[in-house]
Amino acid sequence: MWKIDEKIATPLYVQLYTQIKADILNGTLKAGTKLRSSRAISTEMCISRNTANLAYDSLFAEGLISSQPRIGYYVENLDIGTCQQSHASACKCGVYDCTCDCKGCTCNNSNNSEAGSAPEQNIIYDFQYGKLLNYELPCNVWHRLIGRCLREYREDIDWKKNFFGEFGLRTEIQKYISTYRDVNCSAEQIVITTGTQFCLDIVCRLLKFLNKDRGMRRGIAMEEPGYDQSRVILENNDLRIYPMELDQHGAAVKSIAGAEAIAAYVTPSHQFPTGIVMPLSRRQELSEWANGKNAFIIEDDYNCHFQHGVRPLPAIQSLCPDRVFYIGGFSELFPCINVSYMVVPQTMLGLLHKLYDNYAPFTSFLTQKSLEMFMREGYWESHLRKMRKNQKIKCEALISALKNKFGDSIHISGFQAGLHLLVHARWNIKEDELISRAYQAGVGVYPVSKYWANPQKREDKTVLLNYGGISPQDIPVAVDLLYNAWCKK
Amino acid sequence: MWKIDEKIATPLYVQLYTQIKADILNGTLKAGTKLRSSRAISTEMCISRNTANLAYDSLFAEGLISSQPRIGYYVENLDIGTCQQSHASACKCGVYDCTCDCKGCTCNNSNNSEAGSAPEQNIIYDFQYGKLLNYELPCNVWHRLIGRCLREYREDIDWKKNFFGEFGLRTEIQKYISTYRDVNCSAEQIVITTGTQFCLDIVCRLLKFLNKDRGMRRGIAMEEPGYDQSRVILENNDLRIYPMELDQHGAAVKSIAGAEAIAAYVTPSHQFPTGIVMPLSRRQELSEWANGKNAFIIEDDYNCHFQHGVRPLPAIQSLCPDRVFYIGGFSELFPCINVSYMVVPQTMLGLLHKLYDNYAPFTSFLTQKSLEMFMREGYWESHLRKMRKNQKIKCEALISALKNKFGDSIHISGFQAGLHLLVHARWNIKEDELISRAYQAGVGVYPVSKYWANPQKREDKTVLLNYGGISPQDIPVAVDLLYNAWCKK
Repeated sequence: MWKIDEKIATPLYVQLYTQIKADILNGTLKAGTKLRSSRAISTEMCISRNTANLAYDSLFAEGLISSQPRIGYYVENLDIGTCQQSHASACKCGVYDCTCDCKGCTCNNSNNSEAGSAPEQNIIYDFQYGKLLNYELPCNVWHRLIGRCLREYREDIDWKKNFFGEFGLRTEIQKYISTYRDVNCSAEQIVITTGTQFCLDIVCRLLKFLNKDRGMRRGIAMEEPGYDQSRVILENNDLRIYPMELDQHGAAVKSIAGAEAIAAYVTPSHQFPTGIVMPLSRRQELSEWANGKNAFIIEDDYNCHFQHGVRPLPAIQSLCPDRVFYIGGFSELFPCINVSYMVVPQTMLGLLHKLYDNYAPFTSFLTQKSLEMFMREGYWESHLRKMRKNQKIKCEALISALKNKFGDSIHISGFQAGLHLLVHARWNIKEDELISRAYQAGVGVYPVSKYWANPQKREDKTVLLNYGGISPQDIPVAVDLLYNAWCKK
Repeated sequence: MWKIDEKIATPLYVQLYTQIKADILNGTLKAGTKLRSSRAISTEMCISRNTANLAYDSLFAEGLISSQPRIGYYVENLDIGTCQQSHASACKCGVYDCTCDCKGCTCNNSNNSEAGSAPEQNIIYDFQYGKLLNYELPCNVWHRLIGRCLREYREDIDWKKNFFGEFGLRTEIQKYISTYRDVNCSAEQIVITTGTQFCLDIVCRLLKFLNKDRGMRRGIAMEEPGYDQSRVILENNDLRIYPMELDQHGAAVKSIAGAEAIAAYVTPSHQFPTGIVMPLSRRQELSEWANGKNAFIIEDDYNCHFQHGVRPLPAIQSLCPDRVFYIGGFSELFPCINVSYMVVPQTMLGLLHKLYDNYAPFTSFLTQKSLEMFMREGYWESHLRKMRKNQKIKCEALISALKNKFGDSIHISGFQAGLHLLVHARWNIKEDELISRAYQAGVGVYPVSKYWANPQKREDKTVLLNYGGISPQDIPVAVDLLYNAWCKK
């Protein structure tokens, strides 16, 4: 029978999950076996029913058990033939992904990206970039709004609308960014996409088209280090990238004084990955650069919502609306809907229509209409308020735990805004060792070096910790584990 | 008791349908009442059993009656409260959609700014391409699945997965296209996008990259006439377009014998817009061309689901899997979810990963997981069956009405498959006049000439009628209006 030990640090549901999983993999629980109900288990083992459910959910998510509504959970036929070992541990990639008979882990196949982005099974506390806590997300409201949308807009759901997006949603976004980010635009200037990368792809195509007539200015300036997911878009569009060095105010305009750049891509609200918040003076300098060079600014305003108590600075777009492509989104707040948007300068609207009028929309009508309701009826603002408060609490908890444990042996940076911070080790250790030792202890921390295009300039004893996906009460426990992993012999 | 008058022009099944519908709506037939069998009705009323079945099918399609296999049809509970009138006729927009208590038809609520792409308010019967009947769509199931997904995958909904799409959904799609379209691929070869155009954009980028090393073969062959939404993608990717002429078997391979094309884009299941179904011999010829020229085929398999009673031919992909980018989608069946997919040749996977591994996914996790459930639990196949049956009924009703009214003064083509057909006028009239006169009469019919890249070759007395968005009983009425508009002085 399974045992729970309340004295050890491993969460109760993980203990339960691990034991059931082992029983399934070693054949003690045969395929087709019905598992006892979570209610029965919680009574027998003196654990909460929630804990039992969490363990079952995890097993279900891994495909080890199947669910029959209102009947119960059954052990799945894993078809693992003679291969009886736990493949999760058998493969170094740490991803439970083996499709026996027995090819080993598929992480070596084409699906590497799946392995790379899936949460690691050994990791109990995960500081991975992009993660949020699912219980913070407005799932019930969203489900209700989708239902209302299916009823109230039945006339339209069979219908593919225009590329730019639903006008109602664009109007809501316009009102919001005008109030909250001082962005100066009309709803017509807004395009709805499914992510920052798709916005950037549109910008690249517009700039390349513009460039045809203008001669040979084919480059785009980009922060160094900078966001890798954006860099790949510029590269795939065959654009030369001019690195912009960073100083304490973020992207240094003087470092691209001689560059023939047609645009500069920046992340002013929380420079990625360093976390620098660009002050107003630098924003003005950048807008003067764009005016002087007849160039554009691509303002990726990610993390603008999380300025931790300080009123956010106005977007660069507000300083020179005709020179800025402004990119915003909902993904930091509600990632599962996959919606971003871009404000296109008024002067570029003609070209945008010329190239894209005959395109289908990125985002489904259903998602757009539900999001429009979500914003119009105030759910967005209240969700935003809640999230801002929660993230600030987590940020403070993480800094305080790190300072308590590590004292002066680390330096912390980039915490003034956003959802992540950087931890720089002050003793002799490398980035990959920081990561692998944390991993051994069940904590996921992440590399920073890969965000430099130039390998020579890379910081190599720094890691990135995103606190969006971890609850405040777990933070000190995770930091304890980190301390033991990094500093104890 | 219902009466049939063989002397009036209204089809018999419409007469029957209209009377039963009136009885249901005015309460003469109460919810739960079992209707007599089509056999009984046909005997009593001296009509064919087919006519009775058509009337029942129409009532079923509108949700007015439900069906219990091998038992019979029952009147549905319409829950229309105090409002006893037929809202279909109450609202000028002609769509059956009233959500009582009684706000009237919602068609006036939605966004007028969208008017450019939304069906025109003056149009009562709209044969616009891309439209479906909203009551045919599985909205309730979809809403339920989203709810389940938000519960069952709570752990994951905060999480952005990989570019290629959720592995579970890709597996379901692989199973489906392998069974139904003979497509030969693994789930790893499938990419999930938000539309055919985005699939094509990926192909263009892959081909351009490949082309860098291969020299100057920069063109893509495309059917002439062909799908304008696809043409714009090729143009925006700076690809030269070689026109492929059509003969009675679709794209004529010999017309591109001398072209230095790196790929050929075709719509074999229902050539757009002519509606030609490409026979097996031509599919083989095309695959030989690709092998001989070391080129690719981009197979846009839209409308493959609607072959009107004939078993669909296997996809070209099944003939030469290493030479075909196969594009499929769900939009003809459930447009509001915006999901398409592409099968990439095994040999191109390396390049695809190189270019796209660092991209975010097109489609939200929530949509993907709900769609995976939708397929896995059999809703997709049953929806498909229902849709196939409904579209076939509409197609036959439209042809029969057109032939009845117009006789030899028109020629009808492209009706063997798909959701639209072409009507060619045999008297002296131009396309724009056909369209504007129909519009005056409240009927939307659409141009064909714009699908020719070469203006000199355009057909200019032909219009396109999509019957997906019009109910069977409305078809004869709409055709009457067309006849009056076109042929009466």
